[in-house]
Amino acid sequence: MSECAPVSLSTRLTERFGIRTPILSAPMAFAGGGALASAVTGAGGLGLIGGGYGDDTWLDEQWRLAGPSAIGVGFITWSLRKSPALLTAVLRHRPKAVMLSFGDPRPFVDEIRAAGAAIICQCQSLDHVWDAIDIKADVIVAQGTEAGGHGALRGLVSFVPEAADLIRAEAPEAILVAAGGIADGRGLAAALALGAEGVLVGTRFWASREALVHPRHHHAIVEATGDETIRTSVVDIARQIAWPPGFTARVRRNAFTSRWHGHEAALADAIAAEAPRYRQAFVEGDPDNTGVWFGEAAGLIADIQPAAAIVQSMTSDALAILRRLGGQDAPTG
Amino acid sequence: MSECAPVSLSTRLTERFGIRTPILSAPMAFAGGGALASAVTGAGGLGLIGGGYGDDTWLDEQWRLAGPSAIGVGFITWSLRKSPALLTAVLRHRPKAVMLSFGDPRPFVDEIRAAGAAIICQCQSLDHVWDAIDIKADVIVAQGTEAGGHGALRGLVSFVPEAADLIRAEAPEAILVAAGGIADGRGLAAALALGAEGVLVGTRFWASREALVHPRHHHAIVEATGDETIRTSVVDIARQIAWPPGFTARVRRNAFTSRWHGHEAALADAIAAEAPRYRQAFVEGDPDNTGVWFGEAAGLIADIQPAAAIVQSMTSDALAILRRLGGQDAPTG
Repeated sequence: MSECAPVSLSTRLTERFGIRTPILSAPMAFAGGGALASAVTGAGGLGLIGGGYGDDTWLDEQWRLAGPSAIGVGFITWSLRKSPALLTAVLRHRPKAVMLSFGDPRPFVDEIRAAGAAIICQCQSLDHVWDAIDIKADVIVAQGTEAGGHGALRGLVSFVPEAADLIRAEAPEAILVAAGGIADGRGLAAALALGAEGVLVGTRFWASREALVHPRHHHAIVEATGDETIRTSVVDIARQIAWPPGFTARVRRNAFTSRWHGHEAALADAIAAEAPRYRQAFVEGDPDNTGVWFGEAAGLIADIQPAAAIVQSMTSDALAILRRLGGQDAPTG
Repeated sequence: MSECAPVSLSTRLTERFGIRTPILSAPMAFAGGGALASAVTGAGGLGLIGGGYGDDTWLDEQWRLAGPSAIGVGFITWSLRKSPALLTAVLRHRPKAVMLSFGDPRPFVDEIRAAGAAIICQCQSLDHVWDAIDIKADVIVAQGTEAGGHGALRGLVSFVPEAADLIRAEAPEAILVAAGGIADGRGLAAALALGAEGVLVGTRFWASREALVHPRHHHAIVEATGDETIRTSVVDIARQIAWPPGFTARVRRNAFTSRWHGHEAALADAIAAEAPRYRQAFVEGDPDNTGVWFGEAAGLIADIQPAAAIVQSMTSDALAILRRLGGQDAPTG
């Protein structure tokens, strides 16, 4: 915990989860483990472990590292469908919430509910929001194209209010959260103004001390502007992970993406050499020749901070902004 | 003017231009004429006529239609470079501001300043913001990828605060404005929270009674969700306008874009038939077979309103949102 006095910012999201500030950490595959999730929860938000592509042992270990914190977990839905036992195993840890993203949530709804966990559905389009409404998701995340890692094409600033209108009309009990491009109190304040009741934050927590990220990749994000990312499929081709159409990954624009983006078939042809080379570069933390998984919010990040300090400054800065702007007078003309 | 009582919202942008609310209408080529610009100014914002690709007679006529309102004008910078006399002609109307977007502003700076008009530079990346700082632009617009018409790839929600940080450090006298995806009071409030001092609004004013838009295209935007747009070059290929690399146009996703997007070379090969067919469909207002120029904010638009009503509801809704959120308590934990 940091030395700052804790602050709190109440919305229906904080009430639903009994937390002090409406900040969730994104369940980032590989990068978001138990230490990060428990630090976010400890600072007043709700941390989510990244369930990723399904590694039982890794997940158990992360839960152990998280300790007794109340945390949640997130899955890549289409991948979870291939190994549904993973969900059953994770639910034994009694997560406070399970987030499903990138695929049809229906096959998992009953099991999650029976375990007493809240269901969070992350959405990249209005069709996904309709799916989330259909399964009566507790929390609906509207994810903008700005986000690091997997996502799609809607920009956050119009997607959030459009989703808010739909949810208010069709499922007013659901709680809307904004994700993508949000890294500081300005983004949190803006998300609330757009009609969300909280934020799901990836890139800013990826750049935290608790994230499972190579120090050279951390150095790369501190150096990067928000212009230096790209949405692409080449990282999935290199990892030989068959993502469904419509989703791409936002990563650092580097020598690897410059070489292969737009030449996907050639990368697939070269995969026997490229797959191990990519993996090796990832393990070594070579930021130019592998996927470096951050979003456009990189341009707002100047240092690697403890997750608790991020939660606290986002909250107190958002409160200060909203108070300042809320003092606007409205003289009639 | 509408029957609502005028409200005002003050920022450095309103002070700079002596207006009542920090809303500029985007200078939309073909759609944004004198009637729209004067209606926006009349309601307390600042209207900008779309200088487009350069038609002296059309511009003079729009200025006549605008009447005595204090308005501005915007140009496509790379296009203006081919017909710089257009700027000289327009400056005789004594515009309050000249906006330059999509190209190097340097060749036009001295002439605009000498005429006493403010210089607004619209930017799609941090490099553009650096250019705007370099020429000491009075107003710097950060345009997000959500925007209708031409633009680029940065999402608004992280681009605005990143531009704000750069401007505060390098050119604190410049005024930052947000553009793209903003169509209501929520978007205006969010833009202010992100660090902008106003908004430039296209799509919402494209869907106004004063816009020069075919009624069938207006019908299409009322029906559309924000998912139903695409960034593409096919509209420029069909119009035989050679846009520089890096810029694409967001338009309605329709039969025309489905047929040609991703098959740009084939469209270029078929241009002898396709160019007149596209033009004819545009004139006839066929919303499926030509470019229909709106952005992701389409999903926030349920009707075609007078521009003044848009200005007024955006302002009063933003004020109400900011007052409500500004009332947040901050108990220490």
